[in-house]
Amino acid sequence: MEITVSRKAHFNAAHRLYNKNWSDHKNANVFGKCNNPNYHGHNYELIVSVTGKINPETGYVIDMGELKNIIKKEIEERLDHKNLNLDIAYFSKVIPSAENICIFIYDILRQNINSEFKLSVRLYETPRNFVEYSG
Amino acid sequence: MEITVSRKAHFNAAHRLYNKNWSDHKNANVFGKCNNPNYHGHNYELIVSVTGKINPETGYVIDMGELKNIIKKEIEERLDHKNLNLDIAYFSKVIPSAENICIFIYDILRQNINSEFKLSVRLYETPRNFVEYSG
Amino acid sequence: MEITVSRKAHFNAAHRLYNKNWSDHKNANVFGKCNNPNYHGHNYELIVSVTGKINPETGYVIDMGELKNIIKKEIEERLDHKNLNLDIAYFSKVIPSAENICIFIYDILRQNINSEFKLSVRLYETPRNFVEYSG
Amino acid sequence: MEITVSRKAHFNAAHRLYNKNWSDHKNANVFGKCNNPNYHGHNYELIVSVTGKINPETGYVIDMGELKNIIKKEIEERLDHKNLNLDIAYFSKVIPSAENICIFIYDILRQNINSEFKLSVRLYETPRNFVEYSG
Amino acid sequence: MEITVSRKAHFNAAHRLYNKNWSDHKNANVFGKCNNPNYHGHNYELIVSVTGKINPETGYVIDMGELKNIIKKEIEERLDHKNLNLDIAYFSKVIPSAENICIFIYDILRQNINSEFKLSVRLYETPRNFVEYSG
Amino acid sequence: MEITVSRKAHFNAAHRLYNKNWSDHKNANVFGKCNNPNYHGHNYELIVSVTGKINPETGYVIDMGELKNIIKKEIEERLDHKNLNLDIAYFSKVIPSAENICIFIYDILRQNINSEFKLSVRLYETPRNFVEYSG
Repeated sequence: MEITVSRKAHFNAAHRLYNKNWSDHKNANVFGKCNNPNYHGHNYELIVSVTGKINPETGYVIDMGELKNIIKKEIEERLDHKNLNLDIAYFSKVIPSAENICIFIYDILRQNINSEFKLSVRLYETPRNFVEYSG
Repeated sequence: MEITVSRKAHFNAAHRLYNKNWSDHKNANVFGKCNNPNYHGHNYELIVSVTGKINPETGYVIDMGELKNIIKKEIEERLDHKNLNLDIAYFSKVIPSAENICIFIYDILRQNINSEFKLSVRLYETPRNFVEYSG
Repeated sequence: MEITVSRKAHFNAAHRLYNKNWSDHKNANVFGKCNNPNYHGHNYELIVSVTGKINPETGYVIDMGELKNIIKKEIEERLDHKNLNLDIAYFSKVIPSAENICIFIYDILRQNINSEFKLSVRLYETPRNFVEYSG
Repeated sequence: MEITVSRKAHFNAAHRLYNKNWSDHKNANVFGKCNNPNYHGHNYELIVSVTGKINPETGYVIDMGELKNIIKKEIEERLDHKNLNLDIAYFSKVIPSAENICIFIYDILRQNINSEFKLSVRLYETPRNFVEYSG
Repeated sequence: MEITVSRKAHFNAAHRLYNKNWSDHKNANVFGKCNNPNYHGHNYELIVSVTGKINPETGYVIDMGELKNIIKKEIEERLDHKNLNLDIAYFSKVIPSAENICIFIYDILRQNINSEFKLSVRLYETPRNFVEYSG
Repeated sequence: MEITVSRKAHFNAAHRLYNKNWSDHKNANVFGKCNNPNYHGHNYELIVSVTGKINPETGYVIDMGELKNIIKKEIEERLDHKNLNLDIAYFSKVIPSAENICIFIYDILRQNINSEFKLSVRLYETPRNFVEYSG
């Protein structure tokens, strides 16, 4: 008898899509305006979902305040008001597409949330584009 | 070949989180400001999802008007503008966390929706915190 | 290791619910105000979700710009500012309920999106009523 | 010392833009896809704002429940699930653009809300297009 | 050449509408379900708007971070997770209708924001009901 | 008898807040994380409002399709997926705060919209921060 609890968070960041193994021409062709060498940016909205049993003593799957703090410390403070390509070492080798940012976030949270819980991460790059990853 | 139909509803209620087997001190420590003895409250938003086969004569899985009425009669009229701890007998024994309110709603709706359908209930306590339960 | 990417789109259309094998009386009884012979309409919001592996060269499951163009060409240009009952041949035989419109959209997109990907379509008829279909 | 209170409502309707003094060709040229002879439709969202002094006995400018009922009786029951061109006599002579629908709603509400209050009506035709009228 | 900057905030609180000079019967008649003696509650959303000239050295009318902190310290910490009737002395004498809460917030912020700026406060009691006050 | 029509648009861009007449230390102190030398970014949402008389032949104040195209050509194509500081000459001298971006957009649109109409521009930097300018 499992239930899923979700918490919304957000961060604002710059990025560009760029494959360093390709010519500038191919980068521009494949990534279009997302390839702008001067970067562009987004208000990323994040939904973190944790699935597990309810603790009958608290009525909680997980304390939402604790979950909020984990997201704040591990994700928001790391990514908010940053340039993902330049400020986050991981994205010097990995293209910071919404897909890859979502996996990056999932992997960090997975290490900070008890393994008895299932975890899922949804990342909105814009209100019209979003991705979801569950490991 | 199943499809899921969902209907949104809402109710406004007061509650507090409190475990009567604990000292006031422990209650305050665990539940923080959600433990305020004078209660606080929320605009709860509810999404009820029903999964089943389409009736070819109507094009419906279930008549949305009927589903709306079931939610209104069984959930909104019971919980809207209520104090969950004081006005709802169930929550005199169960802590009215979002998780437990969601299960309470699911269990009532499950008895009022044909068992040939799968049921899922999502409850937003705030736009930033929500839970989902599917039995 | 699969991930889901989603893209939002929208179209505005008129429709009515009507079963031609029934009397006008039964149509009115079953479909209520949705049966208005002069039609009514909605701003349909659409979320198309595609699940698959990330291409490491692009960081994409599927190019969102391409997905946007497929939805635009195959769905928006076909349905936007149309009367579903009168302008779309398919709905001369099938009742244009949200459920059936969702399957119609799914079936068209399924033919236009590589079969290596899973596909899911969510259709909002109003902000309060929506359906989801995954084949 | 005045304050403004606002109430949201909604109705779903079909319409087309058409000037009967013009040729079909000119209608098509000016109104584009909004001219579809078979109609299209929208989920109209309505915000009614009333400005006045607070009654110190109630803390209300106007009872929101009363305002809700006026909007329901005078606007929603008249326009919801209707074809504006065919079902509403007023729009047999006036083009049902968002601007004209907004004025139509304002004029009806103005007669039903005490003249000591200022009135303003905002009408969303889509989440991206809206109009506002204050008399 | 003035411009308006706005900042959104939120707090969750319980309240009831009750006029202590009236009989219980009259209270119930006038305030309906909002009169529940056990309270109900809302997720209040707040938009604070400040109008003034841009400081050319910063490009700011007012530092949004500062404005956020004023709202947090003066409003959120005072009202969040509170029972407005019982926990806020001001509402022992004034009915905590949306209108009166909005004026209460305005008056506090007015003392904390430089008088060279115009101030306006919008308070959402629910997504469907809101009030706005500008002094 | 004037009425206001509004159209929503959006663009995604990178920026940083930086005053070149100040030391790095002062810039960091005043602008905080918005001063990151590597930039951050936002999904800017734009609402353009035009006020005027209704043309009785069309029912329009201004053709929304035309307004959409002006915004697309003059604003979206100029700013979308750009670095405001590096790619837009105007912001080499003016700090790209929300306030200044809003005025920049207003001034461009003012030259492209008939002077018989009043114009107002609202710019959301995030769902929680926005500015509005009317000349």
